[in-house]
Amino acid sequence: MDRQKALQIVKKQLTDKRYEHTIGVMETSIQLAKKYGADVKKAELAAIFHDYAKFRPKEEMEKIIISQKLPSQLLDYHSELWHAPVGAYLVKEEAGIDDEEILQAIRYHTTGNKDMTLLDKIVFLADYIEPGRKFPGVDHVRELSQQSLDKAVIQALKNTIKFLLDKNQLIYPDTLETYNSLMKKQQMKEDFN
Amino acid sequence: MDRQKALQIVKKQLTDKRYEHTIGVMETSIQLAKKYGADVKKAELAAIFHDYAKFRPKEEMEKIIISQKLPSQLLDYHSELWHAPVGAYLVKEEAGIDDEEILQAIRYHTTGNKDMTLLDKIVFLADYIEPGRKFPGVDHVRELSQQSLDKAVIQALKNTIKFLLDKNQLIYPDTLETYNSLMKKQQMKEDFN
Repeated sequence: MDRQKALQIVKKQLTDKRYEHTIGVMETSIQLAKKYGADVKKAELAAIFHDYAKFRPKEEMEKIIISQKLPSQLLDYHSELWHAPVGAYLVKEEAGIDDEEILQAIRYHTTGNKDMTLLDKIVFLADYIEPGRKFPGVDHVRELSQQSLDKAVIQALKNTIKFLLDKNQLIYPDTLETYNSLMKKQQMKEDFN
Repeated sequence: MDRQKALQIVKKQLTDKRYEHTIGVMETSIQLAKKYGADVKKAELAAIFHDYAKFRPKEEMEKIIISQKLPSQLLDYHSELWHAPVGAYLVKEEAGIDDEEILQAIRYHTTGNKDMTLLDKIVFLADYIEPGRKFPGVDHVRELSQQSLDKAVIQALKNTIKFLLDKNQLIYPDTLETYNSLMKKQQMKEDFN
């Protein structure tokens, strides 16, 4: 699917503000894909579709989680997490995207996952650092993203976990697992060097 | 077992500094047990024995984790966590304490556990706030401990998770699970009120 067609499809699903964010994620994903040698076209499409389900009613998302046997544990956590796995499902069903690498990057863009691929990390990070994002710590993650993808993802996860703790919110276990898995890899690398 | 006998046993296992800490944990556990209606004698004994295995060699603890089929996942995390479950085992084997409630409070005093009992929470918290503890945030947890045991444990867990993130250390999944479980209970209580 070409960029114009993809953008046309998602535009109908999003508010203007969220569409603008999507353009930012797309541009950042392309930049990171070029820098780190990922498939640029897949990064572009995953980014364009990453928030496809963002504005679906909670009830619809809940039904999809149950009927499609997505991890039922999601229902015990904030509904803000649901649009990513539900989006991966809907993008396949409604927009006909069936590339599993693209769908996976959409699926894990909010929580992360302990076995994130290069593409998963790029979309996760682009969502966090695209130029429209303005919150404490984002500039530090932007800088790290130009040095090491893993270090940048770790820092974004740290910020997110701390932010959720400060807001008395629950933390999805996969998010901690992603942090532990990347940090362990990092520690082993540093032991090796 | 009476206090003097118990103290005599643990004194041999600890440095002077750690023995002093143990006395602090004992006194704080007794105070909290009285305040929250737990078994004062069990709180006293669990506190006295909580760090029993603190100075055992890593190799010995590793062997016990494997031979006694303690959670093998522990070996992937910081050895600082090992003395609690290993201690529960050794206190039974070597000191003859066989009260399962006491052993459980020893077992979970460092990581927490999603199904913590009143006694577990008391020893976990006393270990964090005993008078010898001096670190940022401890006074806030001391104050909370006189208002709500759960709120104090949640705050201690938050501080611990942030501290570990700042030190680039892994976070034991049970610790997050404890936080999520207590926070969820708290949220439901507040919805109800």
